[in-house]
Amino acid sequence: MRLSQNFTKTRKTIPADEVAKNAQLLIRAGYIHKMMAGVYAYLPLGKMVLDNITQIVREEMNAAGGQEVQMTALQPRELWERTDRWDDKKVDNWFKTTLKNGTELGVGLSHEEPIVDSLRPFVTSYKDLPLNVYQIQTKFRNELRAKSGLLRGREFIMKDLYSFARTQQEHGEIYERLAAAYLRVYDRLGIGADTYRCAADGGYFTDKFSDEFQTLSDVGEDTIYVDEAKRIAVNKEVYNDDTLQKLGLRREDLVEKRAVEVGNIFPLESKYSDALDLYYHDEHGQRQSIVMGCYGIGISRVMGVIVEKFADDRGIVWPHAIAPAQVYLVRIGGDRAVRHADELYDELRAQGIRVIYDDRDERPGAKFADAELMGIPTRVTISDRLLEQQRYEVTDRATSETTLLTRDELFGTLEHN
Amino acid sequence: MRLSQNFTKTRKTIPADEVAKNAQLLIRAGYIHKMMAGVYAYLPLGKMVLDNITQIVREEMNAAGGQEVQMTALQPRELWERTDRWDDKKVDNWFKTTLKNGTELGVGLSHEEPIVDSLRPFVTSYKDLPLNVYQIQTKFRNELRAKSGLLRGREFIMKDLYSFARTQQEHGEIYERLAAAYLRVYDRLGIGADTYRCAADGGYFTDKFSDEFQTLSDVGEDTIYVDEAKRIAVNKEVYNDDTLQKLGLRREDLVEKRAVEVGNIFPLESKYSDALDLYYHDEHGQRQSIVMGCYGIGISRVMGVIVEKFADDRGIVWPHAIAPAQVYLVRIGGDRAVRHADELYDELRAQGIRVIYDDRDERPGAKFADAELMGIPTRVTISDRLLEQQRYEVTDRATSETTLLTRDELFGTLEHN
Repeated sequence: MRLSQNFTKTRKTIPADEVAKNAQLLIRAGYIHKMMAGVYAYLPLGKMVLDNITQIVREEMNAAGGQEVQMTALQPRELWERTDRWDDKKVDNWFKTTLKNGTELGVGLSHEEPIVDSLRPFVTSYKDLPLNVYQIQTKFRNELRAKSGLLRGREFIMKDLYSFARTQQEHGEIYERLAAAYLRVYDRLGIGADTYRCAADGGYFTDKFSDEFQTLSDVGEDTIYVDEAKRIAVNKEVYNDDTLQKLGLRREDLVEKRAVEVGNIFPLESKYSDALDLYYHDEHGQRQSIVMGCYGIGISRVMGVIVEKFADDRGIVWPHAIAPAQVYLVRIGGDRAVRHADELYDELRAQGIRVIYDDRDERPGAKFADAELMGIPTRVTISDRLLEQQRYEVTDRATSETTLLTRDELFGTLEHN
Repeated sequence: MRLSQNFTKTRKTIPADEVAKNAQLLIRAGYIHKMMAGVYAYLPLGKMVLDNITQIVREEMNAAGGQEVQMTALQPRELWERTDRWDDKKVDNWFKTTLKNGTELGVGLSHEEPIVDSLRPFVTSYKDLPLNVYQIQTKFRNELRAKSGLLRGREFIMKDLYSFARTQQEHGEIYERLAAAYLRVYDRLGIGADTYRCAADGGYFTDKFSDEFQTLSDVGEDTIYVDEAKRIAVNKEVYNDDTLQKLGLRREDLVEKRAVEVGNIFPLESKYSDALDLYYHDEHGQRQSIVMGCYGIGISRVMGVIVEKFADDRGIVWPHAIAPAQVYLVRIGGDRAVRHADELYDELRAQGIRVIYDDRDERPGAKFADAELMGIPTRVTISDRLLEQQRYEVTDRATSETTLLTRDELFGTLEHN
């Protein structure tokens, strides 16, 4: 993308009421636009990051046997009354709205009920199971306060997968397969080394644990106890002798850390399927309950977490896979630099490398500062002086390391990223 | 996709209250799930069709200079009061909801206001214009009745692009460029031959015409007058001597047709930008109004239109580009047929051909009927008898024409689609 043709710019000022570091940086860099507290629109660069995260999650869910659907935001009251989740006293963060005829509707805060409802025409026999259904969709939650930017929004984007198994054993196998897929997702997103599967409270569904995926971060909301060797952790909320014994962990091996949740998976037992009359008939014609699981990743939340985790005093630092571009190409100088930069831009794109080309008439210092604020992993500079030397100046955003590379060295380096 | 691993099946029964042919067929074929009147979820095959339509629209909007963003559903009241579109007496199909603190919010029925708002930090100078911004997003409209399936929903998916120009002349150039992009979209969707640019009322924004894109259909809601030679049309609502003179058309060249709207583009003048304080400064430092245009395509509506237009008494007939698969592979017979079908499935996919492989233990008649109901363009059958002849049976969904092809002939045919 030529920066001269992108409508956003970096900004000095941000909305006075914005207190979250992730949102402040994303607004300053032109990635998002604040509509109101907890509600953000995604501008072109922000949409690219969202799409990159989404695609990684989608590929791993497909590889784990997920089938993608798209549920609706508008939700009929009856469905949620059957699971006792309609009453505002039971679920306190609904947004609700009303049809012209006075019928109350919900605005989707979760999708267990509609997903189960949509399976009812298709699932009757043991031959129809197991199956995994997921969507990547907007969710709406009427939070009293929303001050964490993308980390806890009133409107946010989430991947939610639901598994349907015939037995506890089959459920357990799917659950572990999805847990492994989650670790692959975090690896690909660039936060694998600091992300742990973490035992947490199973909630009111089950006496089993649920699992969170927690990424180490000094600004994290959670306290977790990490076994570095085993690469698993325990949330403070279930950190007791009983838990440690069940998990085979010892207090002396655990280190207390601050962390932020980037996903969670939990057993639902048969709460929703029974309530919504989704059963299967086994080989003997007997009606049986279905064992469900639920697997969430907040796509927009992960985007905010990654900003907070890696940012420095100069701005955002994106991991390669989710950056809106791999290369930020800066040109400095006259006609010759312009011609060479135009050519390099075309060549990089021909190699499938995503490039932001700063073709604006700006001071070099302003271009460098924008490249840093926007967090593009590799900055490549072309100038008249560098052309004399037949070298490109290549700067790594994360380490600030600068090297002078020949053309072949440059392409070799970028291929490895 | 192996059909045995797809959770949906074709259905005999549909919801009793579903009267729209497009929704009836899509429900029977397992593409969509009805949540309530005018609100449909997309199951895996339906999601694939939506994604195929979306991708064609996205590519053409990008080629026409569009920059993609993603606005929010939740909308702050203040923004819409400034354009006088908040009051239910002014706009009668809002869904509204309420924050915990009592603040009323809108649930996005359109996005002129937030798009203009999001540009305000970035557009100040003539150098920042022109620009085109679009999104592909869910819209919510509180329709009194919703009986047309995907053709007019309470929740639906729409591409909406907004153009921002410095002068009427610049606006006119963008407007014509987008009109041409629209015709390319309909060509690629498979309805180009029957889709006309159609002059319609400009609404309350302007004394100019707006343009609809109308696809001929016996069940269309609109009456239009078509000049077949010039490939333009006039909507009945503006069919008068004055209009015909302005457009250089003669009554004797026009034929009355039924048609259904698949898109519309219209001038907005400066109504929204002025109201929301978005101006630019010209070369002389003078503040100037911005000339806006608006360009909509209902993605889910187009899906419904295409179903209604091409369906026959055996089911859906998808155009190649948007079908969930190009090939429906049927295997009949024993181990040898299974082995050959497995191989062909892999080979077709290796060629980048999208395949639904009916690997179920079903009667041939049931497989053929499902292939027809689901509307996959090309059915390829492998059986023990055909293997003896070293031929594949290839049946075209639209024409029912069946041919026996060698392997090379089969791949040659599919490459041309």
